[in-house]
Order: sequence, then C-alpha cells, then structure tokens
Amino acid sequence: MIFPEENLLERLRRERPLVHCITNYVTAGDVANYLLAAGASPVMAEEPKEVEEVVSAAQALVLNLGTLHEGKVSAMELAGRRAASLGKPIVLDPVGAGGASFRTEAAKRLIEGLPCTVIRGNASEILALAQGTHSVRGVDAGEQDEISGANLEACVKAAANLARVSKAVIVMTGKTDLVTDGRRTCRVRNGHPMMKRITGTGCMLDALTAAFLGLSSREGRPGDPFERAVYAAAVHGLCGELAWARTAEENGGAGAFRMRLFDAVSMVTDRQVLEGARLEDGFRDTES
Amino acid sequence: MIFPEENLLERLRRERPLVHCITNYVTAGDVANYLLAAGASPVMAEEPKEVEEVVSAAQALVLNLGTLHEGKVSAMELAGRRAASLGKPIVLDPVGAGGASFRTEAAKRLIEGLPCTVIRGNASEILALAQGTHSVRGVDAGEQDEISGANLEACVKAAANLARVSKAVIVMTGKTDLVTDGRRTCRVRNGHPMMKRITGTGCMLDALTAAFLGLSSREGRPGDPFERAVYAAAVHGLCGELAWARTAEENGGAGAFRMRLFDAVSMVTDRQVLEGARLEDGFRDTES
Amino acid sequence: MIFPEENLLERLRRERPLVHCITNYVTAGDVANYLLAAGASPVMAEEPKEVEEVVSAAQALVLNLGTLHEGKVSAMELAGRRAASLGKPIVLDPVGAGGASFRTEAAKRLIEGLPCTVIRGNASEILALAQGTHSVRGVDAGEQDEISGANLEACVKAAANLARVSKAVIVMTGKTDLVTDGRRTCRVRNGHPMMKRITGTGCMLDALTAAFLGLSSREGRPGDPFERAVYAAAVHGLCGELAWARTAEENGGAGAFRMRLFDAVSMVTDRQVLEGARLEDGFRDTES
Repeated sequence: MIFPEENLLERLRRERPLVHCITNYVTAGDVANYLLAAGASPVMAEEPKEVEEVVSAAQALVLNLGTLHEGKVSAMELAGRRAASLGKPIVLDPVGAGGASFRTEAAKRLIEGLPCTVIRGNASEILALAQGTHSVRGVDAGEQDEISGANLEACVKAAANLARVSKAVIVMTGKTDLVTDGRRTCRVRNGHPMMKRITGTGCMLDALTAAFLGLSSREGRPGDPFERAVYAAAVHGLCGELAWARTAEENGGAGAFRMRLFDAVSMVTDRQVLEGARLEDGFRDTES
Repeated sequence: MIFPEENLLERLRRERPLVHCITNYVTAGDVANYLLAAGASPVMAEEPKEVEEVVSAAQALVLNLGTLHEGKVSAMELAGRRAASLGKPIVLDPVGAGGASFRTEAAKRLIEGLPCTVIRGNASEILALAQGTHSVRGVDAGEQDEISGANLEACVKAAANLARVSKAVIVMTGKTDLVTDGRRTCRVRNGHPMMKRITGTGCMLDALTAAFLGLSSREGRPGDPFERAVYAAAVHGLCGELAWARTAEENGGAGAFRMRLFDAVSMVTDRQVLEGARLEDGFRDTES
Repeated sequence: MIFPEENLLERLRRERPLVHCITNYVTAGDVANYLLAAGASPVMAEEPKEVEEVVSAAQALVLNLGTLHEGKVSAMELAGRRAASLGKPIVLDPVGAGGASFRTEAAKRLIEGLPCTVIRGNASEILALAQGTHSVRGVDAGEQDEISGANLEACVKAAANLARVSKAVIVMTGKTDLVTDGRRTCRVRNGHPMMKRITGTGCMLDALTAAFLGLSSREGRPGDPFERAVYAAAVHGLCGELAWARTAEENGGAGAFRMRLFDAVSMVTDRQVLEGARLEDGFRDTES
C-alpha cells in the first residue's frame, strides 16, 4: 500500500495548520493537546460574534456536537458558511446523533446547509444519519454498533449512501474504521480496544483529520480528502497501538494509556505510518 | 466485613451502566474518563431540549453544581424529574453550597424538588445544607472542615439529619468518608491525602456512585443505595491508595498520582476491595 | 540575583490562597490542577449572580479571555469591580487579543475599567493591546511573535508602554519571558520549548501568578507585584525544565511532559528556584 501523498506528518509539523474547533467542553482540552502534540495549532472559539473572524484565520474547521446547546448551533452555522465561502475544509462530528433528537436534527441541518468535507462518527451516529433514527447507547458506540462481519455490508452501504447525499467523505470509526467517499472505500484496521476506555479519541481524530485537510495544496493540486482522512485514521489508530505497547510494557492502565497516546502522536513519523498502516481495499472503487 | 452484594465491580464492567452527567466544565473530562476507566459509560448533556431524552436512555443521573449557571439549574430539574418518574437513581453534588448563596439555594431547591438517591459533598457543603449557612473555603474542603475527632459527632448528626429530611443517602467525604441513610452510618477510612491535591476526585466519586446505583436489580431485589454508596467510596478511596503506592515508588508528584488514579480504577478488582476496604460501624444502626 | 521576598513557595503552601478563576473551558481543569499541585486552592465560577460573593472569599482573581462569550464579560466586570473595591489582586489574560476583534475589544474594556495588577499574554496579544491591532496566529504565539534579538527592543517598549498606561505589571511570555512595570524590566530565561506543545501553560502561569499575588502582606508591607510576577515566571519556567529533564530521561513525549509539569510544580522548592532562576536585568530600572 503506497499513500499517494508523502510525508503528511512532516508537512503538518512544518506548516502547523490552525484548526478552529467549535466543540464540547468534555474533551476540548484533549483535542487542543492532541493537535499541539501532533504539531498543529488549535483555536477554540464559539461566540457567534467572533467565529467568522476566527475561522477566516484558520486552515480548517471542526464542528463537534458534544455538549451541544442551542446557541452553539448558530455559531457552527456562521463559522461553517464562512469556511465554505473561503474554501476551507469542514469536519463534522455528529456526536450523539440517533441518540437524542436535538442532536440528530442539528446534525441533519448542518449537513444540509454546509458543504462538509468529512463527517466522522461511530456506527450508530452514521447509521442514524444515513438511515433515519437508530437507537444508540450514549456517545460511545456499543458492541452492537461495531462494524463487524455480520453488519459490515449494511454499514458500508449506509456510509456510502450518506457520502453520496452529503458529498462528504464519511469516516465511520469502530474496531475497524471505514472511510468512504461513496465511490472508494477503505477499511483501516489500526487501533486498540483501550481507545474506547478513554474519552475523546473520536474528537481527537476529528481534529487530526481537519489538520491534514488544512495542509496547503501542492503544485496547484489540492489534497484528496478521502486520502487525507484515511491517513489521519491510520495515524490515529497506529498511535493507539504504540500507546498500548508502551503502557503494557510498564503495567499501566487507562491513565497511562491516555498519556502515552499523546506521547505517540507527538513522536510518530510518516515512516512508521507507511510501515504500520493496515489498510484494506486501497483507494480503488470497491466495486472494481 | 462482608459486603451484602458481591462482585459489584465485575457487574459494572459487564453491564456498563450509562451515566448521564449534568456537570461542571472543570472536571467533566476527568469524570468521563473515570467512568470509562472503571468500566461504565458516560454521557454529558445539559441542553434543556434534550436532557429528558438523554436521561431516559441512561441508568443513572448525576447533578453536579460546579460552574453552575442559571440555565443549567432548569436542565437539572427537567432531567431530575424525568429520572424520578422512571425510577432512575439521582446523585446530587452540591459543589460550593454554603460558600455562595446561588449554589446553596440551587442545592436546596433541587433537594426539595427531587427524590435524590445520594447527596455527596464535603463537610462544609453537607453542613451548610443540614444546618443552614456555613462559611466554606472554595470548593475544596479546608482543614477546618475535616471530619475529625473534634467535630465527628456534629458531622454525623448533621448528615443523618439531612438524610432523614431529604430521604437520600448522605456521603460526606474528607480524610474519612461518612455514609449515612439517617439510620445506618458507616465510616470509610480509605483514601490518601493526595486526592485533595488534584481536582475532581469528589466529582469522580459522584459518578462512580451513580454507576453502581445504576446496576440492574437482581432477582427483583433492587440494590441498597446505602450499601452501594459505601462500596463506591471504598473503591474510590482504595484507588487513591493504590495510585499513591505506585506514584511514590516511581518518585512522582501530583501529575503522576492523577494518572495512576485512572490506572487504578481501570484495574481494581472486587477481591482487592474486599481485602482493602477499611470500614467502621458496618451496615448496622449506629445506635444498636 | 537575590529575590527580595523569601520562601514564597513555602508561604503559598502554608497559606493556600484561594484563586477565583473566570476562565475558558479548554484549560480550566489544568489550571485547577496546577494551582492544587502548587499548593494553592482554585474556585471556578462565572455565573454573574455569584461572582461577587465568590471573589469576596478569594485572595486573588484571574480573568482569562479564552472561549469568551458575551455573558462572561459581564461576570468578569462584576467580579473585577468587587475585587478592586476589596483591594484584591487581578490577573488578566487577554487570550486571542489582536486575533479577533471581540477579544481585543473585551480586553481593552477590562483594562480600562479595572485596576489590573498583572496582564499576561504572548507577544502578539501584548503588542495588540500596546500598539493597536496586530495579526496573530491562533492563541499560541507563532514563531514570528517570539521575543528575540530582532524585535526585543520593540517588545520591551510596547510592554513598558502598556504597563504605564494600564498601571499593571506586564508579563509577555515566549521563549524568554519579559516582565515589566514600566520602570523596571526583567527577562526570565527559564522554560522549555515543549511548553508550547501542550495547551494551557500560559493559563497556568496566570493562576500561579495570582496565587503569589494573593499571599498575605508581611509586617504591613504588601508584596511587590513586579517581584511576585517575576518569581511566578521563574517557578513556572523552571518547572518546565524539570518536567522535560524527567521526560527525556524516560523517553516520553508531549503526554509525559504534561504529567511531569504537574509533578514538578507539586515538588519544586524555593531553594531550587533561587538556584535555577535565570534572570536578566534584575529588579532595577533598565535605564539606570
């Protein structure tokens, strides 16, 4: 498997893209730390009076529906429209869609009103948006929501359908991550079960994906969001593996794992990603 | 000392109760991580439009008054009433009661309006609610608020009185924790002074208690909130001891201790609790 | 270099000053933990109905403009005026000033309306307030905003000018920190580049500075805010150095560094500060 774009992590550390996050207060600190550790720059701002100015200075925008409230949806719409008008990538995380109507409706409204570049969620959330309502269990995907043999085909279809309707790349995360733009599909087999024992790993991937999307275009050719989303998922999953390896070696638990995840993203290299990424289906049409 | 219910941690890890937290933004991430590390599931949501739907899907509700604002009190009342109507346990943490009138009044209103299952606070907070106003020093209990020989009797009386009036189990935490339902009283001598050198250990105990309260009933017999609250306090205190043992061994300070606390709760077993719990007075009437 | 006041850390751990923080939700937990680890006490509260009561019980106030929203500015004004009327020190952190008009205007309004004791920001933020608008790159100072040979003179002038106009001590942090009261100037050369790879190190310094400012006066002589601010910057920078030394020894990355920073502030002693502080220009007039 050869990634079409080379040295994305190295470029991220050189360019330090500024990622504007309108996000929840539970994991905001972790997201900021994850971006900084990776080499990017975070800015959190949600006051409607300033989000347009803030996103104008940023390279990418993250809209995360965790701890959503009414006022924040307006800020997301303002920032999203400005980002769209300036051609900046938008990553939407429909946290809790399918679980609470307020979130599901907000997610749908944002998807309809904004040209999202990437939509990332767990299986429950993506299925809820693709198929209509679907019961979920909190914001952490339950076992029944895993993308596994039994429901893989249904998941791929739902995600690809949402991709076609929304024109966004869909990243459906779980034990295995599924990335699709409706035409191409790639499964990323990196990661570790411990990533579900700490909060915010999904939010971190949102932000990391946005940072990769925010890298400058080269020779007039903008990066392919599908490829960048796959790369982000591979980096993130690999960091989970590296974090666990060190944690286990030192007899640590969930606390040590969380610390080592930040360690990993601050030290992981493009070479390690090329060697450690476990991708399936490549970047070609799954139909072909 | 034999706990009437067996293997509560094992059951928690199997059932993964979903705990809806309406809480402060200072420790929300820590609370989510503590629940996940222990084996439970967190969901944070405070928008009045969705809290009733969210709590309906949860097994327990936590109302924590840290960084309280006017709108959040309404969300707490909505969620609390729905939880009550569905028979779901409610844990109230009156953060800062006694220190600021707004918090004291909010705490009183919530206690009067909702059938709280457990009320957990430090001595200042509980005394303020039990006896009327009482000066406190921030949200972390000061030395003068410790439950010690000098004021033990007054603390027990105040807590038992609040328990009878509110019909809730009262958990008054400090160097020694005091758990009472107005009839039975138990002191939990687990814990470590370092737990006061990091923020959120009280909030973590709120959530862990709610998770235990949210476990399913067995053979039609619902769990006893008093016993569950004692178990949660013992688990939490023991995790503090385990965390400090490892931290000291590795010459760490407050940062390492905080990490090891999450490690501990992710690895602690029921057997360790049975062996390490240091309880006084057992589950019998203190009068008897 | 001999600090005029002795044993400030020891006094902080004995007096445990209560620091009221009206701050952002991204780093609020880190700030609370940093204060607790250092030996002080945090209280976070921003509801306008209670901030006056809360600040009345505190020894110092921090106003941090991160994740600012309209309602929070009112709370800051209420708390600030009460603090001023009671003679309590105020530390202002104009996060994002120069980058977003809403923040710049809020910062200016607060500086005009309140007798700030210390204003701490990166070079972009301080220059924006001293010279009018100035483009910044997010809330983390970019390379171009470093206080280096090339722009040192301009930075010193701008900071000293802001100090004279605001009557506050200005702390401009970066690779080297600059502290000035408009008359005296001191450069603090402590710190480590990793401090820019985690979020909140600026917010932590705000709070630590406030804690030192909140120590009681001795023999009727209140502490000198300039000296206290220099001491706080030296302690904080030294903790960064100690944290990195341990992190490097253990082959850690950004996650381990962050943990070790809390370790360091919980264990650092006045003696280490006296020996490790790298100050320039001392406490005398730079003109003399």
